[in-house]
Amino acid sequence: MKQVIVARADIGMGEGKLAAQVAHASLQAYEEAAPPDQREWKGGGQKKVVLQANSESDLFELADTARVEGVPNAIIRDAGHTQLEPGTVTALAVGPAPEDAVDTVTGDLQLY
Amino acid sequence: MKQVIVARADIGMGEGKLAAQVAHASLQAYEEAAPPDQREWKGGGQKKVVLQANSESDLFELADTARVEGVPNAIIRDAGHTQLEPGTVTALAVGPAPEDAVDTVTGDLQLY
Repeated sequence: MKQVIVARADIGMGEGKLAAQVAHASLQAYEEAAPPDQREWKGGGQKKVVLQANSESDLFELADTARVEGVPNAIIRDAGHTQLEPGTVTALAVGPAPEDAVDTVTGDLQLY
Repeated sequence: MKQVIVARADIGMGEGKLAAQVAHASLQAYEEAAPPDQREWKGGGQKKVVLQANSESDLFELADTARVEGVPNAIIRDAGHTQLEPGTVTALAVGPAPEDAVDTVTGDLQLY
């Protein structure tokens, strides 16, 4: 089981901002997962991997693939109080789900 | 309501690594919170702020203060598969809890 969080590398987020957006996405997708999958993922150490994408449309395409594959997912928009314009799409979390199901969605992306 | 995640700035974590550790801490402390506090925090947009500390002992002292104040908290140790030695303490999440309760614990720290 794992969760992948894909964050945009093209919008100049600072490190702390990036981390907060990744955490939002992670929690949101976690809550979409079925309780047995939540438990299995946490019991195995809640593996998380952060990958990068370079556009909003990339995140939407990945989210569509996740939906088609039946993998829990969540797209995050920033409220825009600080660094970003309100509503900026910042991150997508995919899973927790079996590793191969997550890889079907996010397999080609680079580590952040 | 807010959650503050304090991450170590002294151990050279890369951006993606930092984000994953912050997300671990966030979820873990979230699960320590009482369900009404969880709901109130999520309903208000799950405010998260990432701050920095410069040693393991700083994180343990903050965690002690959180315990004394009755604020949910979680310390994260990295499994050490990649960048860090196994067992390295990387991050502490405090809250979700009322803003003033969280500030009592983490008030002096700088943004990451």
